[in-house]
Amino acid sequence: MKIGILGTGVVGQTIAEKLVQLGHQLMIGSREKQTTLAKTGKDNFGRPPFSEWLKNNSKVQFGTYSEAASFGEFLVNATSGTGSIEALKLAGENNLANKVLLDISNPLDFSKGMPPTLTICNTDSLGEQIQRAFPKLKVVKSLNTLNAYLMVNPGLLPEATNIFMNGNDLEAKSEVRKLLTSFGWNSKDIIDIGDISTARGTEQILPIWVRLWGALQTPLFNFKIVVGNK
Amino acid sequence: MKIGILGTGVVGQTIAEKLVQLGHQLMIGSREKQTTLAKTGKDNFGRPPFSEWLKNNSKVQFGTYSEAASFGEFLVNATSGTGSIEALKLAGENNLANKVLLDISNPLDFSKGMPPTLTICNTDSLGEQIQRAFPKLKVVKSLNTLNAYLMVNPGLLPEATNIFMNGNDLEAKSEVRKLLTSFGWNSKDIIDIGDISTARGTEQILPIWVRLWGALQTPLFNFKIVVGNK
Repeated sequence: MKIGILGTGVVGQTIAEKLVQLGHQLMIGSREKQTTLAKTGKDNFGRPPFSEWLKNNSKVQFGTYSEAASFGEFLVNATSGTGSIEALKLAGENNLANKVLLDISNPLDFSKGMPPTLTICNTDSLGEQIQRAFPKLKVVKSLNTLNAYLMVNPGLLPEATNIFMNGNDLEAKSEVRKLLTSFGWNSKDIIDIGDISTARGTEQILPIWVRLWGALQTPLFNFKIVVGNK
Repeated sequence: MKIGILGTGVVGQTIAEKLVQLGHQLMIGSREKQTTLAKTGKDNFGRPPFSEWLKNNSKVQFGTYSEAASFGEFLVNATSGTGSIEALKLAGENNLANKVLLDISNPLDFSKGMPPTLTICNTDSLGEQIQRAFPKLKVVKSLNTLNAYLMVNPGLLPEATNIFMNGNDLEAKSEVRKLLTSFGWNSKDIIDIGDISTARGTEQILPIWVRLWGALQTPLFNFKIVVGNK
């Protein structure tokens, strides 16, 4: 499959590496190619600059948001939440129409320091805002509730855990489910919570996620939903 | 121990039953005794009226918020979140001073129908509001992330799950931890996330909790945090 990823940070890179391994054709996009390539030094996670990553991942094509969105039959939003709507606008409505978007973004505001707060919550969600702004796009929120390395390697944890899906389009959710199972997720562990408004719930997990990272002293954890007998 | 519970709903009743079984002396309090006793018919959960419950739980004393708070050396807030601050005001600041309050409340707003939204979130929490309003009270938020029957019966689920604690006072958290282990929780499964501001995280779990109840078709579930090797 031809897949376009918006966002060149740790989430975009990690997802891109996995998708290349799985045999897909990949283009990863940023706002301005030259600015992204000109970055030097390590990022906030201690990772090398993007240009070095790109050299080491030569099968990944690199383009603008618009080029990546045009290239992909299937799209992934791995931009930071505060920039997601603008990134999708730059991608171009025509390049988005009728495509599935796996939306991994979270509306986190780090501008007031740690821990981050949410720029959107309670009566709305970033998933819903994206769906409203681009009605022809089939937005499926998923994978936004765990660390990037775990997204593509659920087996790193000692037992099976859960991820969630939110979206209005059943067929699009079925496509995302297929992709996630190719990442190593058991289909039964992917919980379809409902339409895109249920993204309020998954995005609002972030505040406890961030604090658990502190309490547990590692970002390598995930939620497992344990259900009793009905 | 002499324990005062504020709130006569399903959470207050369930906690009271367990505490009586464990040999504690109990008083459960409501805003106006006569109004609470005059209730007829089943509640939203299909449970009989409070007066009938009280008859069947004759070891539980019944009083006003103020009487229950005065009676208890240890207090439990099981009121609905929108009424918690007022309930504690009626309980009386002198009856609260220097006592531990296990705060189980959630700031849920059902006034616009289902699913509920939160009356407080993101940059504040009900736990923090209570702590600010009553600085001498030692507020420990816990048990607010799961169904009442599971609070006092964690073994109803097929495997061990987690609950969280938030609070500023370490000694108070240690007292709450002791009480929770007497309910059947393993001490290692009670995660102390940090000071009372971390209650933002646990209270904001409610939106996904409510939607998972819908998706899973049962309220008998809980979160287990699965941690990888560091």
